[in-house]
Amino acid sequence: MSDIERHFLHSFFYPESVAVVGASSNQKTLNYNFIANLVNLKYRGKIYPVNPNAEEILGMKVYPSLKNIEGNVDLAVISVPVTKALDVLRDCVAKKVKNVVLIPGGFAEIGESGRRLQDEVLRLLRDNGIRAIGPNTLSPINADNNFTVSFRSIKKLPRGRISFIFQSGLYDPRINWLLSEFHMYLSKLIDLGNKMDVNEVDALEYLGQDPETEVIAMHLEGIAGDARELLRLLKRISMEKPVIVLKSGRTEAGAKAAASHTGSIIRASDAVFDAACKQAGVVRAQSLDEFFDLAKIFEYLYPMKGNRIHVSTGPGGEGVLTTDQCYYHGLTMAKLGEEAYNKLRTVFPPWEISANPLDLGICGQFNSGMDVGSVIVDAVAGDENVDCIALQGRIDRFIKPEEFLRVVSETVKRGKPVAIWMTVMPQGENTIVDQMEARRIPVFPSAERAIRALAALHRYYGLREAIRGE
Amino acid sequence: MSDIERHFLHSFFYPESVAVVGASSNQKTLNYNFIANLVNLKYRGKIYPVNPNAEEILGMKVYPSLKNIEGNVDLAVISVPVTKALDVLRDCVAKKVKNVVLIPGGFAEIGESGRRLQDEVLRLLRDNGIRAIGPNTLSPINADNNFTVSFRSIKKLPRGRISFIFQSGLYDPRINWLLSEFHMYLSKLIDLGNKMDVNEVDALEYLGQDPETEVIAMHLEGIAGDARELLRLLKRISMEKPVIVLKSGRTEAGAKAAASHTGSIIRASDAVFDAACKQAGVVRAQSLDEFFDLAKIFEYLYPMKGNRIHVSTGPGGEGVLTTDQCYYHGLTMAKLGEEAYNKLRTVFPPWEISANPLDLGICGQFNSGMDVGSVIVDAVAGDENVDCIALQGRIDRFIKPEEFLRVVSETVKRGKPVAIWMTVMPQGENTIVDQMEARRIPVFPSAERAIRALAALHRYYGLREAIRGE
Repeated sequence: MSDIERHFLHSFFYPESVAVVGASSNQKTLNYNFIANLVNLKYRGKIYPVNPNAEEILGMKVYPSLKNIEGNVDLAVISVPVTKALDVLRDCVAKKVKNVVLIPGGFAEIGESGRRLQDEVLRLLRDNGIRAIGPNTLSPINADNNFTVSFRSIKKLPRGRISFIFQSGLYDPRINWLLSEFHMYLSKLIDLGNKMDVNEVDALEYLGQDPETEVIAMHLEGIAGDARELLRLLKRISMEKPVIVLKSGRTEAGAKAAASHTGSIIRASDAVFDAACKQAGVVRAQSLDEFFDLAKIFEYLYPMKGNRIHVSTGPGGEGVLTTDQCYYHGLTMAKLGEEAYNKLRTVFPPWEISANPLDLGICGQFNSGMDVGSVIVDAVAGDENVDCIALQGRIDRFIKPEEFLRVVSETVKRGKPVAIWMTVMPQGENTIVDQMEARRIPVFPSAERAIRALAALHRYYGLREAIRGE
Repeated sequence: MSDIERHFLHSFFYPESVAVVGASSNQKTLNYNFIANLVNLKYRGKIYPVNPNAEEILGMKVYPSLKNIEGNVDLAVISVPVTKALDVLRDCVAKKVKNVVLIPGGFAEIGESGRRLQDEVLRLLRDNGIRAIGPNTLSPINADNNFTVSFRSIKKLPRGRISFIFQSGLYDPRINWLLSEFHMYLSKLIDLGNKMDVNEVDALEYLGQDPETEVIAMHLEGIAGDARELLRLLKRISMEKPVIVLKSGRTEAGAKAAASHTGSIIRASDAVFDAACKQAGVVRAQSLDEFFDLAKIFEYLYPMKGNRIHVSTGPGGEGVLTTDQCYYHGLTMAKLGEEAYNKLRTVFPPWEISANPLDLGICGQFNSGMDVGSVIVDAVAGDENVDCIALQGRIDRFIKPEEFLRVVSETVKRGKPVAIWMTVMPQGENTIVDQMEARRIPVFPSAERAIRALAALHRYYGLREAIRGE
């Protein structure tokens, strides 16, 4: 048994047998998707649907109660109304279930009566050595073995290097968008809900050790465990893996809203938390858009030491705006070496132009038929004065998809970060964006988002080195 | 002749006759679209294609030279290589053309030789009383009479209340996205390019007076005219019409890039400009995304006095994040009146929840089949304690499009701002987003963008009132 297998959370992500209490045979209900996902995504463990009112789900036998199951149950996923939760949990005790995921809301987040019920549940579980995620949760998802707990019919589950820690189902209505349209590659995902038992410290501890997880992205409404322990842990993990944190309840009003949402208590002011994050080497995101953008770029690319960027834009005016964005986010415009400069000049118009930011549009106009985008990336990719590359994707005229994919993909593989943003995001099947992101070339809908994400690769590097130098 | 008709720029937007020098009969070239747009969009003035190498374009006679045209030419659109520009301008002088739009680049922005050429062009025009937009430009566009100067084949040109001032074609590759997908309604658009003659002060003066223009959005790389005059003008116009400004070249590096792009000189530091904007009542945008978002919300909705917002979100966790965003942008969570609160309670789950932010998701779960979104908007719209409404569009389960469109559209018409953001933006034809925006209900791709835009309606109101109170 490896170290990671000894962590108690391991059996939540890799259960050998799972019972779904409340599984439904009605395709129109959310409770149908638990079993459907396990079957469709080919999860290989034992599956036991439990529902006193159903006989068969997707050809599988349905058990009236947990107690009727013959084999062991590693994990019971409980999706029943809150009023029936205690009864089901007593069945879990009787059945000697190891772990539970408690999905319903109606506990601590609704006030005093819910708090009392949650305390009663916790006592019952503790007395019987059962560990629990939730209540008020939906998870885990594990792309390593295709084990999923979700209300959504999950279309595909591309395996990758990043694991997510959520609180409160923020991701849930977006899960298919995240995996299929936004092209996130996933290792694991856990949603902590009310954090009655399993909390952010447990999740970080596990994912910090998990060899499949190379990047961690965490959404936090409040801190359930010891704040100092959390920060010590974040600091330790950040030395090895980038950790991105989105914390909500940053304002007083937001904190109040969090309290009535998951019963979270925000203990420290946001400024204190912000300073603590920096000391811990954590990359903080300020909004949901930024959180997903950073998650993508850290999954696709690797942290970078330098901050010298090369920028090419379609309309030249966007180069000026983009230069501003670079400086705001701590990047500087690379001064090209002679070789790169001479290569670039081959696509210049018949006069001198700025090499950085480069006006890709004017180059395209004077080199019609040439794949100007590929020439540019190829020219600057080999320059040691350039730490990263950002380019506006003008597929309408100046970029030939096939050659461009090859050149950029090679650049990324050689370890030089490249981010693309599209003038207009193409829609439909198998777009150039799909093709780029299939090769881990991240594509953003605007310059500011591309630059903000790219800059974070350097920001993390700087924070980590500062800690290493302490 | 009305006041506005006496302004020299009026005849650029409403020419009675236009010659396009360089018009092409080859559908694959950009120069084909000048005539095609005028014909397809049904511009009613006289059109004279000019090209010594073509005989017919879209069934129209092509003139070998300006001098061969029989009638008057109000405006000559000149799209020829820079080396031929002076010859064509001499023809303009001979033909007594009133105005020209000079499209090619290769002037002041390329350095000393271009600067000399630009000066020579300007002397020629001044000596002969000809006014000019450009060089290095593409415009104007006028949705009032469908007069357009564009390299793109413009699909539709929905008429609205906003006019844009651009510098340097930033909008050009996005024009169809802006009008057809982003659903911008337009009055006029002018692109100043190198601002050899017509500059931002002229454009603001004209649009400030234009009764068809109720909102102005301006992108500025540098200030060509007198900065104090510009700020005085901005202050005067802001009293009557919101003016949104995106200024690039904010950082030193950006300013340097601007100089090589349109030859613009940034004279004051960005902090000074920022303070001056506030004093002038200008709503400043910090990025291109924000610029377009603010343009949309000011075109769709009206400035609002109060800052009390009601927020509903799909996943409850998003309510906490959104509350943070509200406070960061100067909005406060409205405390509902009794009547609104009682109406809202009808969709609550069987326990008390926060009324603001409201967890639309949990309400939907306990009121399946009910159009929870419409009930919520209807409940808070009539409350005088609520100045504006933001709601996460969860069309998958909790909102019925038809009723929702009716309720929100009535709310917006009664003058209460509503902004929607979608959990996931739907794609395709005639989506719920298309339907909402056809009714001037603005839809954003994320909470932070919806809130940032909504807050600007109040920010403008506050700036304007501060100036009025001076």
